[in-house]
Amino acid sequence: MKKISLLGATGSIGIQTLDIIREHPGEFILSAMSIGKNIELARKIIGEFQPELVSVQNHSDFHTLKAEFPHTNFTYGDEGIIEAATFEKADILVNAVLGSVGLNPTLQAIEVGKTIAIANKETLVTAGHLVMEAARKNNVSLLPVDSEHSAIFQCLQGENEKNIERLILTASGGSFRDRSRSELEQVTVEEALHHPNWSMGAKITIDSATMMNKGLEVIEAHWLFDLPYNKIDVLLHKESIIHSMVEFHDTSIKAQLGTPDMRVPIQYALTYPDRIPLPSGNRLNLAQLGQLHFQEMDLNRFRCLKFAYEAGRAGGTMPTVLNAANEIAVAAFLEGRVTFLQIEDLVEKALDNHRTIEYPSLSTIQEVDKETRQYVQSLL
Amino acid sequence: MKKISLLGATGSIGIQTLDIIREHPGEFILSAMSIGKNIELARKIIGEFQPELVSVQNHSDFHTLKAEFPHTNFTYGDEGIIEAATFEKADILVNAVLGSVGLNPTLQAIEVGKTIAIANKETLVTAGHLVMEAARKNNVSLLPVDSEHSAIFQCLQGENEKNIERLILTASGGSFRDRSRSELEQVTVEEALHHPNWSMGAKITIDSATMMNKGLEVIEAHWLFDLPYNKIDVLLHKESIIHSMVEFHDTSIKAQLGTPDMRVPIQYALTYPDRIPLPSGNRLNLAQLGQLHFQEMDLNRFRCLKFAYEAGRAGGTMPTVLNAANEIAVAAFLEGRVTFLQIEDLVEKALDNHRTIEYPSLSTIQEVDKETRQYVQSLL
Repeated sequence: MKKISLLGATGSIGIQTLDIIREHPGEFILSAMSIGKNIELARKIIGEFQPELVSVQNHSDFHTLKAEFPHTNFTYGDEGIIEAATFEKADILVNAVLGSVGLNPTLQAIEVGKTIAIANKETLVTAGHLVMEAARKNNVSLLPVDSEHSAIFQCLQGENEKNIERLILTASGGSFRDRSRSELEQVTVEEALHHPNWSMGAKITIDSATMMNKGLEVIEAHWLFDLPYNKIDVLLHKESIIHSMVEFHDTSIKAQLGTPDMRVPIQYALTYPDRIPLPSGNRLNLAQLGQLHFQEMDLNRFRCLKFAYEAGRAGGTMPTVLNAANEIAVAAFLEGRVTFLQIEDLVEKALDNHRTIEYPSLSTIQEVDKETRQYVQSLL
Repeated sequence: MKKISLLGATGSIGIQTLDIIREHPGEFILSAMSIGKNIELARKIIGEFQPELVSVQNHSDFHTLKAEFPHTNFTYGDEGIIEAATFEKADILVNAVLGSVGLNPTLQAIEVGKTIAIANKETLVTAGHLVMEAARKNNVSLLPVDSEHSAIFQCLQGENEKNIERLILTASGGSFRDRSRSELEQVTVEEALHHPNWSMGAKITIDSATMMNKGLEVIEAHWLFDLPYNKIDVLLHKESIIHSMVEFHDTSIKAQLGTPDMRVPIQYALTYPDRIPLPSGNRLNLAQLGQLHFQEMDLNRFRCLKFAYEAGRAGGTMPTVLNAANEIAVAAFLEGRVTFLQIEDLVEKALDNHRTIEYPSLSTIQEVDKETRQYVQSLL
């Protein structure tokens, strides 16, 4: 029985992690969790899974839930999420929170030796050097949850990493795959939120449309698999059936495929290095599908991906700037304050405005993150 | 430095194995080899690779070559090929001979503990139960060389075989993929020898057109990966880019891809579990290719594949009958004595004419093989 601490239980990945726990009552148990502000859903989860420890964002929600569930331990705020991340009885931490709030709890959990299933992009994008160093030092496994990184991780089982020629991350192309740049001028929030293959949260759906999501994944892959950026390619593959690939120097390529279902990589992270059945999963039928399509990625069409490669190569605090600027720009787009193409412009301005600081500490990262947000806000 | 004994050095797989040895002079050395009757090519190979031991088919060729190469040891006939297979200094046996002559040398090499890279289909098809039992008993690795089995073998690295849901062998469809059965009535030998993707010997090219090649591969996969026939599927994939796949019970699928180049699986067998670069290999460019196609396999269109499943499930001596009948029928087709569709009819008649003998010994297999050949000859 694996005991799970789940950060971000009410988000998209959190809910699907709970699906996996529910489907395998003999395999997994929810020991601890953190949520943000969705205490309505939190009530249902606590009722069903009865975790020992629950962390909420606000002090007032803490008091409300504490009164309702007298047999559950509650905590709150930045300290609370760390308490949940490092919960003593948990074997594995699933970090599915959104945004840079995921970073510190991950580092703390690594320090106490937890296995980390990581779905929080910001942790690796902004502090990959700190996280990977801590993981090595504490001999902790970092298991990817993103479908692309999980695909690569699965393909690398039984292989020697020295034999990798390159990673090939596939990209669906997002909501606006088939639109030209001029057609992107006037797209609406509603159109942007309609992803062709995956059902995900709003922020990541917009990031898919701008290709920033793939850019962040490239930076994550750089850290997770310890490879330079010239060995990480992106390929347009509109069906999202091949989740990613690894090419070896003997020209052999391994790919991981499946129907678009985040529960598969989540479950793999929870059962790694073993697998267990997923009876409710949809099996891929390639004959029925008939065709898979592939297309060169155009870095001029998808400028955010180009920015991500540039920020990744610059290193230091530059990926923090990329990520923070993008978060503010996407939020502004979702609020109708900027157009779709202005997201790129805002990110570009923030990168141009920053001089990278090498090997930043956690506090430097947090400072640059804050400054960048303020800077981009000032441009709105 | 890995020392290689190569059976069938002048055949298609043999020549490509020599390409690999030539490309990696610091990694591999040709210690021993066997050839059939192509002593012209044998002379060149001996001159270039200087193996210590060479076995030829005929006594007269033995004398001819012995006089020409006084510093090489020669041997000949059935005993000679066993001598080459079990050559003391060799670390690995590459069995690339055609036909049932490959069986006994493989068993002998297993007995003396050689690692076996197996490209000879008949060995596993006719005597899978004996070969796998001997391999287990002698703790010998059987490494597949066929592109399909190598793909599956590569996908299974780092995985637990208990988690396999099914194997998916891909099939190009061969020379007559897009022809209906009525259009197959009058096809010529020349048309049949024109395979769309792979450059191979005549027998295997015809077997690809009848789909018997895939049928033999299904039986091989049954033995190599110890799976029942209902867990081995065949999928039409005309580009031959995905060489085969493994589906796990969590719905995740792993595939191995690449340009159609037999040197990749040959080299993988020679370097397993490691890989080394293949500088002369063509790297796959999926964006350039644009599309991959998949189609259900129709067992009524490709009757030989149906016969293979039936013979495999019947077990015992039935696959020996399948293989022997097919060899004679294909030879008759290549000689212009029967039509393309009569190949299937001859195989069907031979299977109908045989009552399976369970757990056959090597001599029973050889006897049934001989009887079947005589029976099919009598039908011509």
